[in-house]
Amino acid sequence: MALSFYYLSGSPFAWRVWLALEYKNIPYELHVLSRDKGELQTPEYRAINPRGRAPAIVHDGFALYESMAILEYLEETFQDQTPSIWPCEPKDRAIARRTIYEMDAYLFPPVRRMVEELLIKPEGLLDASVVETASNVVTSNLEMLATGIKGKFFHGNAPCAVDFCFYPLIAMLGRLKLKNSNYDLLATMPENLKTWKTEVENLPYFSKTLPPHWKTAA
Amino acid sequence: MALSFYYLSGSPFAWRVWLALEYKNIPYELHVLSRDKGELQTPEYRAINPRGRAPAIVHDGFALYESMAILEYLEETFQDQTPSIWPCEPKDRAIARRTIYEMDAYLFPPVRRMVEELLIKPEGLLDASVVETASNVVTSNLEMLATGIKGKFFHGNAPCAVDFCFYPLIAMLGRLKLKNSNYDLLATMPENLKTWKTEVENLPYFSKTLPPHWKTAA
Repeated sequence: MALSFYYLSGSPFAWRVWLALEYKNIPYELHVLSRDKGELQTPEYRAINPRGRAPAIVHDGFALYESMAILEYLEETFQDQTPSIWPCEPKDRAIARRTIYEMDAYLFPPVRRMVEELLIKPEGLLDASVVETASNVVTSNLEMLATGIKGKFFHGNAPCAVDFCFYPLIAMLGRLKLKNSNYDLLATMPENLKTWKTEVENLPYFSKTLPPHWKTAA
Repeated sequence: MALSFYYLSGSPFAWRVWLALEYKNIPYELHVLSRDKGELQTPEYRAINPRGRAPAIVHDGFALYESMAILEYLEETFQDQTPSIWPCEPKDRAIARRTIYEMDAYLFPPVRRMVEELLIKPEGLLDASVVETASNVVTSNLEMLATGIKGKFFHGNAPCAVDFCFYPLIAMLGRLKLKNSNYDLLATMPENLKTWKTEVENLPYFSKTLPPHWKTAA
């Protein structure tokens, strides 16, 4: 198979690429890497991504990492393969990219801090003030980002890269209440974001892309 | 004039856009914003960028922020205007984008930490261990990124977005020794990076884009 996709369960950056591959009907061979088994650090994988992170792809011998670079490359390389990962109109495409950079710069860091405090740290070591600050930043960013939803999805009635990048962050937030029911940020997010979340979950290929370890654990 | 460019002196993200506008010969009206005068937070500017950050552009009434989204938009919108901000071959373009994401994700955070410790904090409050850790991360990233230089510039004999994004970070590092000569990271960076730095500084429009407050102070 021409395209190998290197995936790490639970990585929001790997998940976005998986959704895009499925949406665009690009055939791929899935390689699920295990951090615990050291598979991100083998010489073979570091030849593909010297930073030892996921996702990465190898397409006809060309290795590429960094999820946003991959999303652009997939569209440019498989542009005859409908549908498009990116909005077709240049201004919409610009807003789509802007929105993803905003998610990565302003939403992902506080989401990660909340995950570290609430899901990874041993219980009892939780720093409530860190969680509180992060939670406020997340809430204000969800409100701001929700204003960008222009239809069933961010850019109309078909999903695009923005939806594929945003959903994994929302899903991470949804995991927080597993350990601490005080932090159910999805319950209080804007109504249109709740509707949007359901739309993504109803995509025909969605359940296939759920992180494998979320299915077995939880 | 059709394109307004909103700039903040010293912002590496604003600087990259300025270099690209000059390189691509796109006419623009420069608006230098002052953080001290609160010009990032006026209602007028927040209508352009609700996050109150720079850079931003307004092109024929269309407001856009996030520097990478701007660099993509400029190329798509002014694509008949040679030269190109991005490499023309899709694989080269993918590597260019990947390299910039790596700079933003792995190089900018430790550079910023060093700037905060060495240039912003009052003397005496410097946390040497923070600086030491950041300095090591910067050094390893400079070595890794330097391997990507494939000619006079990153992608051959003409500059592109990678050069425009990288230079401002290198320039920030060059400022560190102003207050503390122990941290002259540019002196020990790979030789090909030193040569590349000179090539960028020799670009005909380079000196025009130097941060105004670097010219008056220092």
